[in-house]
Amino acid sequence: MTQAKTVALWDVAEFALTGPVLNHPFADVDLTATFAQGNRKIQVTGFYDGDDAGQPTWRFRFMPDRQGEWLYRTASAVAELDAREGAFTCGPPSPGAHGPVRVRNTFHFAHADGTPYYPFGTTCYAWTHQPEAMQEETLATLGASGFNKVRMGVFPKHYIYNENEPLHPIFERRPDGSEDFTRPNVVAFRHFERQVEKLMRLGIEADVIVFHPYDRWHYCDMSFEQDCAYVKYLTARLSAYRNVWWSLANEFDFLLDVKPIPQWDRYFHVIEEHDPNRHLASIHNGEPEVMFDHRKPWVSHVCVQNTEVKKTPEWRRQWGKPLVNDELEYEGDIPRPWGNISARELVHRFWITVLGGGYAGHGETFLHPDDLLWWAKGGSLRGESAPRIKFLRKLIEDDGRHGLTPLVDDGRWEFRRVSGARDGDVTFLYFGEHQPREWAVGLPKRDGDYAIDLIDTWDMSVTPIEKAPLPVSPALRQRGGAITGDRPEAAFGIRLPGRPHMAVRVKPR
Amino acid sequence: MTQAKTVALWDVAEFALTGPVLNHPFADVDLTATFAQGNRKIQVTGFYDGDDAGQPTWRFRFMPDRQGEWLYRTASAVAELDAREGAFTCGPPSPGAHGPVRVRNTFHFAHADGTPYYPFGTTCYAWTHQPEAMQEETLATLGASGFNKVRMGVFPKHYIYNENEPLHPIFERRPDGSEDFTRPNVVAFRHFERQVEKLMRLGIEADVIVFHPYDRWHYCDMSFEQDCAYVKYLTARLSAYRNVWWSLANEFDFLLDVKPIPQWDRYFHVIEEHDPNRHLASIHNGEPEVMFDHRKPWVSHVCVQNTEVKKTPEWRRQWGKPLVNDELEYEGDIPRPWGNISARELVHRFWITVLGGGYAGHGETFLHPDDLLWWAKGGSLRGESAPRIKFLRKLIEDDGRHGLTPLVDDGRWEFRRVSGARDGDVTFLYFGEHQPREWAVGLPKRDGDYAIDLIDTWDMSVTPIEKAPLPVSPALRQRGGAITGDRPEAAFGIRLPGRPHMAVRVKPR
Repeated sequence: MTQAKTVALWDVAEFALTGPVLNHPFADVDLTATFAQGNRKIQVTGFYDGDDAGQPTWRFRFMPDRQGEWLYRTASAVAELDAREGAFTCGPPSPGAHGPVRVRNTFHFAHADGTPYYPFGTTCYAWTHQPEAMQEETLATLGASGFNKVRMGVFPKHYIYNENEPLHPIFERRPDGSEDFTRPNVVAFRHFERQVEKLMRLGIEADVIVFHPYDRWHYCDMSFEQDCAYVKYLTARLSAYRNVWWSLANEFDFLLDVKPIPQWDRYFHVIEEHDPNRHLASIHNGEPEVMFDHRKPWVSHVCVQNTEVKKTPEWRRQWGKPLVNDELEYEGDIPRPWGNISARELVHRFWITVLGGGYAGHGETFLHPDDLLWWAKGGSLRGESAPRIKFLRKLIEDDGRHGLTPLVDDGRWEFRRVSGARDGDVTFLYFGEHQPREWAVGLPKRDGDYAIDLIDTWDMSVTPIEKAPLPVSPALRQRGGAITGDRPEAAFGIRLPGRPHMAVRVKPR
Repeated sequence: MTQAKTVALWDVAEFALTGPVLNHPFADVDLTATFAQGNRKIQVTGFYDGDDAGQPTWRFRFMPDRQGEWLYRTASAVAELDAREGAFTCGPPSPGAHGPVRVRNTFHFAHADGTPYYPFGTTCYAWTHQPEAMQEETLATLGASGFNKVRMGVFPKHYIYNENEPLHPIFERRPDGSEDFTRPNVVAFRHFERQVEKLMRLGIEADVIVFHPYDRWHYCDMSFEQDCAYVKYLTARLSAYRNVWWSLANEFDFLLDVKPIPQWDRYFHVIEEHDPNRHLASIHNGEPEVMFDHRKPWVSHVCVQNTEVKKTPEWRRQWGKPLVNDELEYEGDIPRPWGNISARELVHRFWITVLGGGYAGHGETFLHPDDLLWWAKGGSLRGESAPRIKFLRKLIEDDGRHGLTPLVDDGRWEFRRVSGARDGDVTFLYFGEHQPREWAVGLPKRDGDYAIDLIDTWDMSVTPIEKAPLPVSPALRQRGGAITGDRPEAAFGIRLPGRPHMAVRVKPR
């Protein structure tokens, strides 16, 4: 059998076994392997990977989370696959590898090595189903972009501007051309995981969408048993890739007639059973008012589609988990309202979401003579929002410690209208459509030596500004002269240009 | 006694009586007058108007709503004021007079003569309390502006940028300088109603705010009995002015600790008892989530302060009455989030509100060296939104028939994201932050000879455009090939410039 000898920390250790020729190798074999360091044992699930060389092949993959020697032993009812033992050595992580992303500080994320992770994702639903050359173009674009997460479907997408046939069917074809949903097409899965690995090397998380409604291949019509077998197979193949996130669905509510809630819970459980790494897992809604119950323990973070971005702090409080708004509408010009907002508006919604203590997702949908729209097919970006989002990401990462806490959590009503957030002793304000010429609310309450910068979120400029006196009439007397206590409660004020879409950063020198 | 001989339809017929010297002429006298045409009788309430010439004077006012001869007879426990009879003739309306505004078609307004009234109001809370010269400036500005309603308080306002003393105390001063809340200052009321009448001559509705929390004169501390006497006196004096609207409060919820809900209901009832013309009456909230129950029959229309303007159609459905959003934040640059949005944003919110089937209110709050801010003091306008709002008003009036019905009421999900409305066979679309290059949803379902215009809501340009083919892939096949029925259901499409803040008007030629 082939065997990995040395594997970098958080890389994929892959092992192969050959077995007997069986009528239904996908269904008739249960294979597990248990990896151990001393008494610590981790079980992974094996999967059938076809018989290219006439040799039926099973594989199992393991993501070592600790350096040193690992021993393993397989278990299977099939003699050739049972009780196979081996060992390998886990070395230091490859450059840039920080391990899988986990929830940190309730509302935020970090890699396994503690490096904070601030998701600034984009959307290319069907990029792995496009011609190879275009997939290479997509990877090149992503590598140069500021995005560190991609939402991508296992299944191809049938939708306007997405009429082309996918590279590979997801399941083996019968002689009549129909697909046998009990027999995954290993060629399709090998290709998909190769692309996931390329993203991993680029330091980009793969937000893998397991189901979606935009289908002409009858994948939506699979039985519950077929669904569960597919989810198990997908998890067995992918869970060793450190950059995988599980997105159970794109717009699950548009599938509720064929997949009711208990089935969705079961899909989450199947993933948990076969994913020893407990990758992040969530599910995405279509209608803003149809939310999955993200409080369920198998949902690691909240994924929403909702344009009311000023509600981000409210949603955060409601769910008590990290919040990623993956569809706050896309930059573009197509005749669908979810795909035609201006770049300025998308950048605006990003700032409001991020300073609301959440995270936002990008998408781009510009009409193209050959229907090459980034949001589904990838390729190259043509919009103006991506560089501004990269600029925002850099600002957040430069001062990132624990993640942003929205100032409205302090109870100041002003921050239901403008945006403000704090990370440790660094404060960000974003005024958006508001254009005050002087401001104080949310600025430090104790005076000191602060670096104060005016940030033009569109021009991407950062300009130092000085302290100014507190704005006029901080004390608002009313109701027969009683003090309402409506004071800025700040040690100093600032002067602003009176233009929209300005932000401010304040930090101790 | 003085007596009006001939009065124009919907003008003020005023009558005066002299009476005895009394210790408390405001409280000790009940005076009513009943006006009759045949068996039709209308009772008005008289009021004490001081004793300038040493002659204690009572007046009563009547707004004739029908031409011809009217007879009247007074009733009072005071002999000199009782059983006084007279008559006057009501002639044709003065030029431009259309009578008081009433609710029409559930969600809209019209004058008594049937002329549609589309409120495009502004806010000058304390303009009648500023120096006379500034009040003249305010009237000149209003006359030249596109606004046809002004929100204005009876009481002066104490707030930031509003520290100056009012022209007149609202009640008579005691020797110690304190005000006797049982004795209205007739000088103050005469002045206020003179300004209401000037607005009437300009064709501008006076949205009279009866109570508000921004007070240093202890008007908020008046007893419930004093409140009711004040409301009765105000109603007796003002209800004959056809352009009066009653706004029970600005931000009533900030007064709930001293004026609980049953008191507010009582104030509405006192107005109904003494206002035979049943002027429009509503009440304005501070916190968006604290709404008065506008379903109560004494509330004629819904007044809201709320920035979530895309919810306008929802609110309309919820309350089933005309909706006026008088505070969707103001154009300006002060350090208060409700008073510093850009002109573009305010114009944007106006379009969304109006195409949502509601109406919006303007305000302007730019910092001024002498604290002369339009929203409280009037004077002159310095912003950029007012001309764009005037432009919108003209578009709505040009094609106005029954009032706009939002297209989302037809159930098209697109109109929860973009705005569209219909009035008869005229359709308006507003794309706001959306910038499609092609569109069809909401356009006429039957083909025909239509005038189609592209409207730049900022540049205020109206440019004819041609029909275009329907956008690509109107039929979205999904879920194993089933048709979702997600078609534009339109007879033709249009091409758009792919810029934000565009609107479209379609009407039969």
